[in-house]
Amino acid sequence: MKIAVDGMGGDYAPLEVVKGAVELLQELNEVEIILTGDKQTLEDELRQYDNPSRISVFPTEQVVTMHDHPKDALLKKKNSSLYKAVELVKKNEAAGIVSAGNTGAQMAISLFVLGRLPGVLRPAIGVPLPYKDSMGLLIDGGANVDVTLREYLVFALLGKVYLESILERKVTIGLLNIGEEPEKGPQILQDAYKMLKEHFKEFKGNVEGNEVLSHKVDVIVAGGFTGNMLLKAIEGTAETVLGVFKEAANSSLKTKIGGLLLKDSLKRAMKTFDFETFGGSPLLGVNGISIIAHGRSKHAAIKNAIKVCYNIEKDKIIDKFKEQLSDESFRDSENC
Amino acid sequence: MKIAVDGMGGDYAPLEVVKGAVELLQELNEVEIILTGDKQTLEDELRQYDNPSRISVFPTEQVVTMHDHPKDALLKKKNSSLYKAVELVKKNEAAGIVSAGNTGAQMAISLFVLGRLPGVLRPAIGVPLPYKDSMGLLIDGGANVDVTLREYLVFALLGKVYLESILERKVTIGLLNIGEEPEKGPQILQDAYKMLKEHFKEFKGNVEGNEVLSHKVDVIVAGGFTGNMLLKAIEGTAETVLGVFKEAANSSLKTKIGGLLLKDSLKRAMKTFDFETFGGSPLLGVNGISIIAHGRSKHAAIKNAIKVCYNIEKDKIIDKFKEQLSDESFRDSENC
Repeated sequence: MKIAVDGMGGDYAPLEVVKGAVELLQELNEVEIILTGDKQTLEDELRQYDNPSRISVFPTEQVVTMHDHPKDALLKKKNSSLYKAVELVKKNEAAGIVSAGNTGAQMAISLFVLGRLPGVLRPAIGVPLPYKDSMGLLIDGGANVDVTLREYLVFALLGKVYLESILERKVTIGLLNIGEEPEKGPQILQDAYKMLKEHFKEFKGNVEGNEVLSHKVDVIVAGGFTGNMLLKAIEGTAETVLGVFKEAANSSLKTKIGGLLLKDSLKRAMKTFDFETFGGSPLLGVNGISIIAHGRSKHAAIKNAIKVCYNIEKDKIIDKFKEQLSDESFRDSENC
Repeated sequence: MKIAVDGMGGDYAPLEVVKGAVELLQELNEVEIILTGDKQTLEDELRQYDNPSRISVFPTEQVVTMHDHPKDALLKKKNSSLYKAVELVKKNEAAGIVSAGNTGAQMAISLFVLGRLPGVLRPAIGVPLPYKDSMGLLIDGGANVDVTLREYLVFALLGKVYLESILERKVTIGLLNIGEEPEKGPQILQDAYKMLKEHFKEFKGNVEGNEVLSHKVDVIVAGGFTGNMLLKAIEGTAETVLGVFKEAANSSLKTKIGGLLLKDSLKRAMKTFDFETFGGSPLLGVNGISIIAHGRSKHAAIKNAIKVCYNIEKDKIIDKFKEQLSDESFRDSENC
């Protein structure tokens, strides 16, 4: 299985990207990686690892920066490491593409080059949620600011099929809202509640902001604005609380000793909340595999993101999407 | 100054409510408290404190429960401890009212009995934010699920006037959104951005979900749906991270000792995030003072909520609202 990796995307590219790719190859024998980007730079990096096998460089000339507007990246950077990596998927020369670069640009290019799955108007980002005992999925993590009623149904379907494949078990679905009762929240969420209840026996009702990490359901459906706001709030709060703890531990000799005794155990536990290592959010609904890694991804996050790509291809999840999306009861919903 | 306190509202009423009220009286000599609720129950509680002076019981017969629909509380529970407490404010027999009971009912009753300030269509909840070095305010914390463009302006004004009075200094204003640039987020937020920039020299642009606790601005303006989602996410994440820490500290003898050495320091530090003790969110925009305390308020939170009420009255903040709302440049905005 060949996977295209944007060698120039991310705050720590190419160093951490190459490192993550090399580490992935050590774990998964059946994967080959095509790194797109500046030939010289990437080859220099690979030399650090004695030019490992099963990894090649696809030379490109442009780089999409974090400041590029998605539209500009799409129209003016067709020779970028990101664009070329997506093209490799379109040409069937790679099973999927992973990038830690400009998320907006990756979405725009993936959508334009790979197209949508039949029945999907707006692809969505499926963000893995760190549950204590398992993994959840929030969909949409921020691809769509405005959504119509039908998107809630499509997002639920994509999220369910994806997570069931990954976890190899049945999953439950919830709707992100500001109260438990069906009549809570704005009208569109009240309508979405009814629709989800009608279509999915797996639907368990609303999930509130404070319940997102508590594994109330497996798949949490949200509009992209709300989903993105929520994820950033979780990330920011976890960081703030961590900072408070660090400060408390540094306040006296006694607490410093306490902090040292706790350090390893805490570090292990906090890994759960480290979005950087958790990495790898698939853009679901495009006709191909495109994995978004956090901009701050280090090697472990890159490795995880490539694994996400690998699992989607191995489990033939895109085919499963197509099958479910063409289901009659689902196609009937197109009018809503 | 007389303050009405709903003696039956909250998960720990009347015990913690009475305790908080009694403690408040020890701190603020010029305050008298009128406790509304079941005469026998409240008098029994007060007897624990040897019937302190400056606190009296206003006997009422009904209780608004957490499960009562706001409309039912408003129409069918006119003899409740909550309704009567609000009426005391309307009749100028109390300067303001504090309740830890059913928030929706408190909003509905306050709005109906006290009315709106001129120029305010929808009152909003101003929720104190625990900044490390100061206090911020998020407005609206959940009173309005749907808002029009003008509410963003009104919320900004109310939040600014309130917080400037409380902090006794100039404050800055931000808009809760999912990106920094003016063109981010849904159309209404893009429009709100422009409008706030036009009206307030204090406006500093968008604030993202992960920046809410970082004191980027003093007053954060948001629609009630987004504001509520955000606050719950912060609360839930802080609790989850705390749980992870506790578990890590309990994992071995070594970490247990570490945890013990850190305990006091951590406990002090975490107080910052304790919404329960922080308590006291004013319902801003009603023609009177109505303070919402967290349902889980214990005595410290009740005491704080009464203090919030006291400060609003002492600083004549309702008069300041009226003055600012009648300002010409602000009234011109009524068409938007």
